[in-house]
Amino acid sequence: MTKQQSLTEFDVIGQFFSGIGFTSSAATAADSVIELGMGDDCALLSLAAGQQLALSIDTLVAGRHFPHHAPADELAWRALAVSVSDLAAMGAKPLAFTLALTLPAIKLSWLQAFSNGLRAAADFYRIALIGGDTTQGPLSISLQVHGSVAAGTALNRAGAQAGDSIFVSGSLGDAAAALALLNKNTVTDAAEKYLLARYYRPQARIELGLELVSLANAAIDISDGLLADLEHIAKASGLAARVDSWKVPLSSELNAIVSPEQALHYALTGGDDYELCFTAAAEQRQSILALSDRVGVAITEIGSLLPGAGVSCLNQQGDQLDFDQLGFQHFQP
Amino acid sequence: MTKQQSLTEFDVIGQFFSGIGFTSSAATAADSVIELGMGDDCALLSLAAGQQLALSIDTLVAGRHFPHHAPADELAWRALAVSVSDLAAMGAKPLAFTLALTLPAIKLSWLQAFSNGLRAAADFYRIALIGGDTTQGPLSISLQVHGSVAAGTALNRAGAQAGDSIFVSGSLGDAAAALALLNKNTVTDAAEKYLLARYYRPQARIELGLELVSLANAAIDISDGLLADLEHIAKASGLAARVDSWKVPLSSELNAIVSPEQALHYALTGGDDYELCFTAAAEQRQSILALSDRVGVAITEIGSLLPGAGVSCLNQQGDQLDFDQLGFQHFQP
Repeated sequence: MTKQQSLTEFDVIGQFFSGIGFTSSAATAADSVIELGMGDDCALLSLAAGQQLALSIDTLVAGRHFPHHAPADELAWRALAVSVSDLAAMGAKPLAFTLALTLPAIKLSWLQAFSNGLRAAADFYRIALIGGDTTQGPLSISLQVHGSVAAGTALNRAGAQAGDSIFVSGSLGDAAAALALLNKNTVTDAAEKYLLARYYRPQARIELGLELVSLANAAIDISDGLLADLEHIAKASGLAARVDSWKVPLSSELNAIVSPEQALHYALTGGDDYELCFTAAAEQRQSILALSDRVGVAITEIGSLLPGAGVSCLNQQGDQLDFDQLGFQHFQP
Repeated sequence: MTKQQSLTEFDVIGQFFSGIGFTSSAATAADSVIELGMGDDCALLSLAAGQQLALSIDTLVAGRHFPHHAPADELAWRALAVSVSDLAAMGAKPLAFTLALTLPAIKLSWLQAFSNGLRAAADFYRIALIGGDTTQGPLSISLQVHGSVAAGTALNRAGAQAGDSIFVSGSLGDAAAALALLNKNTVTDAAEKYLLARYYRPQARIELGLELVSLANAAIDISDGLLADLEHIAKASGLAARVDSWKVPLSSELNAIVSPEQALHYALTGGDDYELCFTAAAEQRQSILALSDRVGVAITEIGSLLPGAGVSCLNQQGDQLDFDQLGFQHFQP
């Protein structure tokens, strides 16, 4: 049943997926080491003393998470970046990844573009491809990332404390706005181009995550939307979260193409931004805001954690925003 | 784009995928530890001093690797077992796995059966589910296994030496014969039932792999077919492999339902058996054959490695078998 595919698989791996990220990841060897990469039954990793391995798997399915016609190089970048973002949210340093790629057919031009995008992203994030599986079927990409983090220091969702401030990196809502642009044949507007790049080339906040290990109490990456992901922190920590909606950072590009209400809606409920949302005690506020220059990304305080449960969102007059009115589908199918 | 799915995903994970394999895997904690399981951005693993992490990812696609109507509990067992088999081939001890499950729709009965099968297999192999992703799309299963192995001891494909004997575990060709039975509505014949179980419930040879670490020079699990997988060892080790076809172990059940020629064809070229093929020096022969009783699986010597390249297969008269005549598609699509 798999004979024909196995064959093609070896060709594909040799031609398009060998050596990805290895040059760039040599620097990580000081901590932890790739003992054996692709080509055997398993890959082998060693961890430096005192290090733990952080790992996360994600699947992107054509027609569900990206359009069938998505450019293969952009898609590859996005697939790796959204998984690396999970490492950032734990404060882990990227080390290696595996790729399970399911393709309807072997199209060399598509594979070359995918390989190019993957190689560029792997170099950027200093992470090496150490194993995988190529199969025939409806287009989908499962990718698992592995990073190292000093034992006991990983950021998690359950560590938030009452009184913590809530911070986010970058700007929110850009990727949600981009979803509406994905089917446009030609995009020439600069703001629209910016938003599409935010969707296809999310920036996993690795450097920020590494710094936050000693400053933050809890962190998550924003994949499902600010309020939904913040609820994960609140619930895991047994607390309530309050967001001051007017403080939520919006890009000028987002504001340029949609109404203020729509922009806020995207920022609160749209997923796919892969910025970090994290919480920290008041005495860390200055150190955290000072990180912005060092790691090259905006950091904005947007609310706080309180005793209680649930996530609420206030306007500048102190009134609670009506999620239904915002179109927020709160865990409803 | 992912809002509706995220929601359903949490329900599915909580209801069907929590706590799988954790009780059974407690014993592995002596070596290496699951520091954090499902529910955060990443899972966390620690390795005991001197241990390396072996990992492998595999994808099974409906309609390609299994029929759409395959029983979900059998499918779950098979998905985990074929991946654990990669750990066996390295001599690694199972520790933890991740699961990326893509489903066309949420069918509770299917999920319950899948969960039951996965839980049973995880308990059997003493491996815990520590993370995953559930998405909507055409049915497919990507599964990554993680095991631990003492540094420098992992079995690989490249270690075979000229003069090594070639061994296989169990019997070969059973799963290939079962493929022809998958679409039968009712199977009542005992031999057919046995073969179907060999397909759906492959036995990853973990205990054998652990013993071989100190005895064998090279190993691989038979997923693509004996000759194809043996060629991987021969090529990686820079040697030729010679198989004495009449020594290849066939089950009485296989012999009961097909001709001798067909049985040999299945055994040489059919994949999906997940037995181990390994090589060892002559002085290890007795120790290796003695393993059979200890680990409860037949071990058969079927040939040897020689200087040169390629894989050849002889009949009892010493004539080389004609692969074309055998129907062996040697790396041809």
